[in-house]
Amino acid sequence: MSNGAGALLEILRRQPEASRSELAERTGLARSTVGQRLELLSALGYVEEAGPRPSTGGRPASTVRFKPDGGVILALDLGATHCRLAVTDLNREVLAEVSHELPIADGPEQVLGRVRTLLLALLRRARRAPAQVRAIGVGLPGPVEFASGRPVNPPIMPGWDGVDVPRLLSAFGAPVLVDNDVNIMALGEHREHWPQCGDFLFIKVATGIGCGIITGGRIHRGAQGAAGDIGHIRVPDADELCRCGNRGCLEAVASGGALARRLSAQGLAVDDARAVVEAAQRGEPLAVAAIRESGRTIGEAMAGMVNFFNPATLVIGGDLAHAGDELLAGIRGAVYERSLMLATRELRIVTSQLDEAAGVVGAATMATDGLFDPARVDALAARAVSAG
Amino acid sequence: MSNGAGALLEILRRQPEASRSELAERTGLARSTVGQRLELLSALGYVEEAGPRPSTGGRPASTVRFKPDGGVILALDLGATHCRLAVTDLNREVLAEVSHELPIADGPEQVLGRVRTLLLALLRRARRAPAQVRAIGVGLPGPVEFASGRPVNPPIMPGWDGVDVPRLLSAFGAPVLVDNDVNIMALGEHREHWPQCGDFLFIKVATGIGCGIITGGRIHRGAQGAAGDIGHIRVPDADELCRCGNRGCLEAVASGGALARRLSAQGLAVDDARAVVEAAQRGEPLAVAAIRESGRTIGEAMAGMVNFFNPATLVIGGDLAHAGDELLAGIRGAVYERSLMLATRELRIVTSQLDEAAGVVGAATMATDGLFDPARVDALAARAVSAG
Repeated sequence: MSNGAGALLEILRRQPEASRSELAERTGLARSTVGQRLELLSALGYVEEAGPRPSTGGRPASTVRFKPDGGVILALDLGATHCRLAVTDLNREVLAEVSHELPIADGPEQVLGRVRTLLLALLRRARRAPAQVRAIGVGLPGPVEFASGRPVNPPIMPGWDGVDVPRLLSAFGAPVLVDNDVNIMALGEHREHWPQCGDFLFIKVATGIGCGIITGGRIHRGAQGAAGDIGHIRVPDADELCRCGNRGCLEAVASGGALARRLSAQGLAVDDARAVVEAAQRGEPLAVAAIRESGRTIGEAMAGMVNFFNPATLVIGGDLAHAGDELLAGIRGAVYERSLMLATRELRIVTSQLDEAAGVVGAATMATDGLFDPARVDALAARAVSAG
Repeated sequence: MSNGAGALLEILRRQPEASRSELAERTGLARSTVGQRLELLSALGYVEEAGPRPSTGGRPASTVRFKPDGGVILALDLGATHCRLAVTDLNREVLAEVSHELPIADGPEQVLGRVRTLLLALLRRARRAPAQVRAIGVGLPGPVEFASGRPVNPPIMPGWDGVDVPRLLSAFGAPVLVDNDVNIMALGEHREHWPQCGDFLFIKVATGIGCGIITGGRIHRGAQGAAGDIGHIRVPDADELCRCGNRGCLEAVASGGALARRLSAQGLAVDDARAVVEAAQRGEPLAVAAIRESGRTIGEAMAGMVNFFNPATLVIGGDLAHAGDELLAGIRGAVYERSLMLATRELRIVTSQLDEAAGVVGAATMATDGLFDPARVDALAARAVSAG
């Protein structure tokens, strides 16, 4: 049962400022309760006085507002070979940011040790102290048990299986939330550009293929946290051997990695997804054709998901999305042709606007969502009341 | 913001009785507020005194409880050719029930007129007055815009497109909620047998094929309310013409209707899904083989959904589910073989336990969920406070 502190903070995070009587009216709380809860939120550093509002007669109403500089968030997007790290304020505005080469296969101790050093330097650059860190969000390139923050049999992360990632980042004394990269990219893109969209899919097409699912503003994780793992859907009539041991998986046929292997065998010098896109941008006919075909294959697989889930928006991200229309045209064609008319009537299929920033924006979003979860804020307020 | 009335009712609906101090503790409301809200709930007819609880010393605590006979629910499951109607108490216990031939193609005025007559007879049988009806839940065999209760281009319901179903049942003076049959079957089966299951799918295999999706205890409807419409997913290498105008749809290949057509062409006298199942139960080899193959085809299509959605439980219902193991074996084989190991590690695939009652149980569940929605109860309580 809510005591109102969380609900008040939710309102203040969504508008520039509010008077106490507006807050009482919108929450149904007594004015005295509003005042008491605001004191607690102010002691936590999350709200502050905003001064009097110009009055239309009578005594001017004093207002309060959310305080974005009441702490900082650390946002970590760890990929297969690179990391992107950011310090943001409590509104997820980036204060300092860095990208760095950092092979995830170096293992958790070495990678997270290096990350800690980079984060301390970033905090200095942002002129903030480590003690000001309020929450940490981490995206990893593999499956994660969200409740514990531990990777689960991650295929490209040797040494990370079952590792307690929050413990390895506990030096900052802030809660650490960990999820897989596609989920946080979906969350970032959704919150930043599609916040009103109730049913949203984000498909990452890079070395692998994965999907993040947002419904009712939340990530759909599924029973084992495996939801969105579309890379191993079977493609009809395909026979390519997949790293998972099956044949004909979507990822083995249509990912950037698969295209790089196929084009290399045809004599084109491309080692990875980015090189394939560059070749297509140079106008290499083989690369252009391969990307279009890949879009079509992905679209055919997604047509079933679109019927099943009925999303309003489907965003395509990841390295291969840089091929732009080549990839998109294939996906759109196949989805519109093969999904039910009712399910595609208002469906938008577009490329990611956040692009390479989707991961850190999503990590910061996950961290602030956890930090300002109304039930958590209520519990903090209740503890403060009983302690005081 | 909650005023507590809805939350109190939620608690009382889940346990046999509670004392006022327990309720105050669990909700965080002041004891005086608890007393005031309970008076309102009692005036609405939803709670009553349960008398003193045996005491372990000191004054015995008086308790209150939910009052299942504080009104009745009408539950309507309207199929293509038959209807099933029930009067239940507020705990969804069936007080009287009837099944009746009633072709949906007779059109809304005639069908709902007949339904009203049948419901009045059922109420008499249950010794309840029409004025005691608190809510009505309706399942229809086609797509429905849930917010308005209007069917949307329903393929087998001539004359029903856009019809205001709640208005045609307004004589009972109670709120009317309408959804498609597969959604309410999923809701009924979930609440009755899998209430703890977070991610749940119910697949109906009958004349057509559809899927109900439950996540976090709620029906996932999707952007246009079309979620779960898996009957038109494309089956690789299939060419059968579907009623939707495409070729190779799952429904055109593997539904009971498709099997009946195919077996008839092979000389077996079966007109519909039920006849196909009866033939299989008699041991007709053609029918047995066709049902197994249908299971395999459905399973191959579902393998992708299982990777995507990662459900914990997948229930198979509808007429063809009466074929039991023949259908189930095919579905299980294909799903376990083609889905990711992580997604199927704890996946259960079973047949419906509610079977033909799934629709009415689901309709009653939808009606009580709407009636006792905490926000709605809070609003009623707030109105009573300001009126009093």
